[in-house]
Amino acid sequence: MRGLYVGRFQPIHNGHLHCIKYALTKVEELIVVIAASQYSHTIKNPFTAGERYEMIFGSIKEAMLPIDKIHLIPAFDINDNSLWPYHLKRLVPSFEVAFSNNSFTTMLFEMAGVKVEHIPLLEREQYNATKIREKIITDEPLDKLVPKYVISFLKRINAKERIMNAINSLDDPRKR
Amino acid sequence: MRGLYVGRFQPIHNGHLHCIKYALTKVEELIVVIAASQYSHTIKNPFTAGERYEMIFGSIKEAMLPIDKIHLIPAFDINDNSLWPYHLKRLVPSFEVAFSNNSFTTMLFEMAGVKVEHIPLLEREQYNATKIREKIITDEPLDKLVPKYVISFLKRINAKERIMNAINSLDDPRKR
Amino acid sequence: MRGLYVGRFQPIHNGHLHCIKYALTKVEELIVVIAASQYSHTIKNPFTAGERYEMIFGSIKEAMLPIDKIHLIPAFDINDNSLWPYHLKRLVPSFEVAFSNNSFTTMLFEMAGVKVEHIPLLEREQYNATKIREKIITDEPLDKLVPKYVISFLKRINAKERIMNAINSLDDPRKR
Amino acid sequence: MRGLYVGRFQPIHNGHLHCIKYALTKVEELIVVIAASQYSHTIKNPFTAGERYEMIFGSIKEAMLPIDKIHLIPAFDINDNSLWPYHLKRLVPSFEVAFSNNSFTTMLFEMAGVKVEHIPLLEREQYNATKIREKIITDEPLDKLVPKYVISFLKRINAKERIMNAINSLDDPRKR
Amino acid sequence: MRGLYVGRFQPIHNGHLHCIKYALTKVEELIVVIAASQYSHTIKNPFTAGERYEMIFGSIKEAMLPIDKIHLIPAFDINDNSLWPYHLKRLVPSFEVAFSNNSFTTMLFEMAGVKVEHIPLLEREQYNATKIREKIITDEPLDKLVPKYVISFLKRINAKERIMNAINSLDDPRKR
Amino acid sequence: MRGLYVGRFQPIHNGHLHCIKYALTKVEELIVVIAASQYSHTIKNPFTAGERYEMIFGSIKEAMLPIDKIHLIPAFDINDNSLWPYHLKRLVPSFEVAFSNNSFTTMLFEMAGVKVEHIPLLEREQYNATKIREKIITDEPLDKLVPKYVISFLKRINAKERIMNAINSLDDPRKR
Repeated sequence: MRGLYVGRFQPIHNGHLHCIKYALTKVEELIVVIAASQYSHTIKNPFTAGERYEMIFGSIKEAMLPIDKIHLIPAFDINDNSLWPYHLKRLVPSFEVAFSNNSFTTMLFEMAGVKVEHIPLLEREQYNATKIREKIITDEPLDKLVPKYVISFLKRINAKERIMNAINSLDDPRKR
Repeated sequence: MRGLYVGRFQPIHNGHLHCIKYALTKVEELIVVIAASQYSHTIKNPFTAGERYEMIFGSIKEAMLPIDKIHLIPAFDINDNSLWPYHLKRLVPSFEVAFSNNSFTTMLFEMAGVKVEHIPLLEREQYNATKIREKIITDEPLDKLVPKYVISFLKRINAKERIMNAINSLDDPRKR
Repeated sequence: MRGLYVGRFQPIHNGHLHCIKYALTKVEELIVVIAASQYSHTIKNPFTAGERYEMIFGSIKEAMLPIDKIHLIPAFDINDNSLWPYHLKRLVPSFEVAFSNNSFTTMLFEMAGVKVEHIPLLEREQYNATKIREKIITDEPLDKLVPKYVISFLKRINAKERIMNAINSLDDPRKR
Repeated sequence: MRGLYVGRFQPIHNGHLHCIKYALTKVEELIVVIAASQYSHTIKNPFTAGERYEMIFGSIKEAMLPIDKIHLIPAFDINDNSLWPYHLKRLVPSFEVAFSNNSFTTMLFEMAGVKVEHIPLLEREQYNATKIREKIITDEPLDKLVPKYVISFLKRINAKERIMNAINSLDDPRKR
Repeated sequence: MRGLYVGRFQPIHNGHLHCIKYALTKVEELIVVIAASQYSHTIKNPFTAGERYEMIFGSIKEAMLPIDKIHLIPAFDINDNSLWPYHLKRLVPSFEVAFSNNSFTTMLFEMAGVKVEHIPLLEREQYNATKIREKIITDEPLDKLVPKYVISFLKRINAKERIMNAINSLDDPRKR
Repeated sequence: MRGLYVGRFQPIHNGHLHCIKYALTKVEELIVVIAASQYSHTIKNPFTAGERYEMIFGSIKEAMLPIDKIHLIPAFDINDNSLWPYHLKRLVPSFEVAFSNNSFTTMLFEMAGVKVEHIPLLEREQYNATKIREKIITDEPLDKLVPKYVISFLKRINAKERIMNAINSLDDPRKR
């Protein structure tokens, strides 16, 4: 049986990794969708799909998860709610179940006849990408929040400057 | 003479119905445009164009308005203000007057050479789709605000859950 | 029971009218979709969605078909085959059956769980919009091919010149 | 009085230059629109809007035409015939007349209330961008067809290779 | 050497003019890009690209800047940060340096290998298009903020009403 | 070192597999891009990105290629030649070389500073997806042309009917 798990992974954190591990106990193969692949260099989406792919792939290998059971697939967003689940279904291999804890995503999937399973969450509230991006700009330690691979990757691409510049995009002359 | 009346109808309420009735006293035929037809499952646009069509058509029949004098036409939004009135003109039968109380819509129509007439509004302030959507989630009675047909239709498609899930879309992993 | 019938209607002809009449013997209400609503002034799509709406509505009235049982709805094309049936379903009222004689359309509908019924065709081969557009530029008589309403409408909007100019669009400086 | 002249200029040739000169005898200021600005590296549109801008600007200076009376403005194509004239009107300064010899373009402009004037054409048939692009790949002399500035610019950007590669795009793996 | 300077110019003000003058002391030719050319009639983008072109061109002439050294080019926005600098490069003549004081724009340009130079700013804080648009609706004097040409142009197109109507677009029935 | 190889894989054939094997002798990791991911159910693109993913993944496993060294990534097409190489670069992990035998693709990559390496081709001319799709509809044997996995997959999804219906899309009422 194949399962599906969707995230933006801006960046991937230990909460995501927990969900991937959990899903792998329920299905033989897992499709991990990198959503909104066309966006980058924004406050909420600082990293490109390619950068997110590298961080997820590196983290999966570091955690010694079975890489040949995981399909890592970027998907562009179509900004059209009622078509979204069908859009996704044609972009990825066939699957039997989607994992989600969000009632909106669940509604869209169920509308398209997709079975949805919830993931028992870890207690730690701090597994939140928005908070992690804030910690990146204030130089707070991330080592309990994201995989080691991600910490060094973020340093290498100078994530702090990326996010701070994205905030300045609010004064960008191109902004509409 | 043919007239035009534009709304999002999320959902149609008695204020809209009042406007349609008023317009029908001024023109022989009325084009009712369901705007932003491509959007649905959002906080401000919970219902699909098809659902809105059904609610408007059912309400018009219930109110015994002359169905053969009303052209109910969904129109997709192009998110381009200066082209919008021309976009609309090619999607619907020719018309001589547009009905609107919004100064922005009026400006766009007049820019494109369309004559605009204002509609004397009912006093009741509550004829407001945003407030009606709020009442749907708090289970407040709608019977003085929307046609009976709409009340039963909203129940049938489980509108309360739809709107509540749309609010959760703010935490949706696809969100950019 | 509600049915669906899709066409581009460039322009509506007696073959289309035959299909609409046939479908109305099978369902209580019929949704007639004007496909590719955003295109006009091209060789294959000379008329706007609004003009096509007027020609269909006029022909339906002329043929004394039950106007209150027919939902005439323009739909923009999304140029995305695997999403198209879902795109259509959210733009129109719910329906139980689609009428089509094209195996491609049938495949897309069935993929989306829509039941498709074929229409026994009239023998006359000439009910073909491409041939009718050719006859318009060569001033051949149309009276056995399209409803009377259409003949006078085409004259009124100067369809001959429209189509001939569209052919010249091949030398249009904007063309890519 | 301001006039408008639209072309793709792939590349600008002496026929275009003739039209610009003629138009300048009729109006005080001329807007020269570089159409389909988003396309490049195709068989029919090998050059980018920026390259076309440089070739036109260089040719205008070389011909000692009054640069301060000419507004050279790239415009992206919207692939929507009935909106195109309105799209153009909002992208450029206001104008009173458009120059065109194409009946399709003329129809669209007149539909939008724009006055159109025809340009008496030069006899030479060879002022044709398609033929010029063919001569570029067969190394035939261009000196009677395009301004000197264009000849040296085409050499500098290696236009021959560009066009030949564009032809190979037909076997491009991305092609749909 | 050619330089590039990007703005939305809603409307052009003395701060913009200062930057253009400064840039012209550093490069032989300056490309002035009118960004987000497709937007108009919104609160942040009230004026069309054509109107902005006219205001900039008039102001440049009024300030007796060398019009033949300035390339005024509207560019549509693609809403895609990581592609934007490349999008711009193909729309304009080649350039060696971009002028910008925004760290976000600077990051995008540098990512695409474009050298960026900062502009020493004037002290006056009020050179801010948002504040100028507010002053337009409250009828405050603009003569120290924008060129004379702009003041009379804004009056001629009734900018006050334009901006006030744009604010009412928040209640526009088309709004999603 | 990471390499990149782009194809539409409609469907994957032994020629593709040869290229992937060759590239893996030159680089440590290979990114295989499934181009034009949004298209399906057309004559040239009958299969969805998800179906193509399954066929490639199955073939790679069947050929016992190192699955953990291959990144299989669908990419949507943007129909914009000069932006395409940058579009691709942000969607996939960083890479040092692209493999291609098409001069057009090579030109676009080199324009974006990407090093391109050619692949020594197999002699057999028949490794051509167009010819393979023709053989599918005429029931000719495919066993020397495509991997075994593909033959059984094509049978399972009824590829013959899919392609034949796509040909009938030429008479599709939605066609523009």
